Amino acid sequence: MTTAKRDTYTPETLLSVAVGVFNERGYDGTSMEHLSKAAGISKSSIYHHVAGKEELLRRAVSRALDGLFAVLDEPGATRGRAIERVEYVTRRTVEVLMDELPYVTLLLRVRGNTTTERWALERRREFDHRVADLLKAAAADGDLRADVDIRLATRLLFGMVNSLVEWYRPQPGGDAERRQVVETVVHLAFDGLRTSH
Amino acid sequence: MTTAKRDTYTPETLLSVAVGVFNERGYDGTSMEHLSKAAGISKSSIYHHVAGKEELLRRAVSRALDGLFAVLDEPGATRGRAIERVEYVTRRTVEVLMDELPYVTLLLRVRGNTTTERWALERRREFDHRVADLLKAAAADGDLRADVDIRLATRLLFGMVNSLVEWYRPQPGGDAERRQVVETVVHLAFDGLRTSH
Repeated sequence: MTTAKRDTYTPETLLSVAVGVFNERGYDGTSMEHLSKAAGISKSSIYHHVAGKEELLRRAVSRALDGLFAVLDEPGATRGRAIERVEYVTRRTVEVLMDELPYVTLLLRVRGNTTTERWALERRREFDHRVADLLKAAAADGDLRADVDIRLATRLLFGMVNSLVEWYRPQPGGDAERRQVVETVVHLAFDGLRTSH
Repeated sequence: MTTAKRDTYTPETLLSVAVGVFNERGYDGTSMEHLSKAAGISKSSIYHHVAGKEELLRRAVSRALDGLFAVLDEPGATRGRAIERVEYVTRRTVEVLMDELPYVTLLLRVRGNTTTERWALERRREFDHRVADLLKAAAADGDLRADVDIRLATRLLFGMVNSLVEWYRPQPGGDAERRQVVETVVHLAFDGLRTSH
């Protein structure tokens, strides 16, 4: 997975290797032995950087969560009409997902067997609630279809966005494809596939 | 998981137990021992019904695939304007997914390590292509937004539909909720969340 030399290891590179192993084997199925092999350093070297695999999990999902929550504080998410804010958040969520693909993938696969996993699930729910609140505000403004249930719509919107981790693979120089993905998600979610009549 | 008596076992009930275990432990992580324990019958009794766990996998994913492919042959999917046919297929796909939840869940988690898994992935791709063809026909009719890439739209549409396996749990007497899920998916996908202006 990597040919990094022992003495060039930083917590950052170790994290990147660990996330790859967690995504491949599942967090539960990953031992310190697996991490040591993938990183090409001894277990005691890993313990020099982190207390154990749960700390690596926490750092990895924190990176994804920090990226997602940061979006909610950006001007586009806090100013203007609610429908524009929710559209902005959708767009930026897709971008964060593509930028932090392995980290968000791991976040979305977290199951809840450990304290860290339960904490991550709780933070995910909090993010979903914040977006659902924006959708509610947009509905109150009359900018959202009245026949749509907000809770269901939030789940389906995230279902669509989160499905990217299953098939999106960044291409070198794939900026045009990247923009197209963002635009297609936004068009589909807010305006639908059908030609307006 | 079940209290069925040894002599009441049929291939059908065994399949239902096996699907539950596969979904919980993953197909790779399931042994005949696990299946025997969950079913409460001996391994040799299981071998009386099936050649092994791969046959159970094949039967289980076949049930999901048969349900999905059957939709494509229904009159609503073969007659009328393409946009109406693709909307019909979307609606019915959601219904099949809810009706056959554990079987479709298993199908969506298949990875491709065995012949059966690769076959299932191939069939899934075929289904996706059939729906993409319908979307293309709808685009050719001018009924689909011109700014939407069909391949991406197909992936996002299925991403949204398939996300149901993560959160949809049928409630006793939940017919109203069921209908609402179907309607919300169709509204979101075809008309979008935004009020039309």
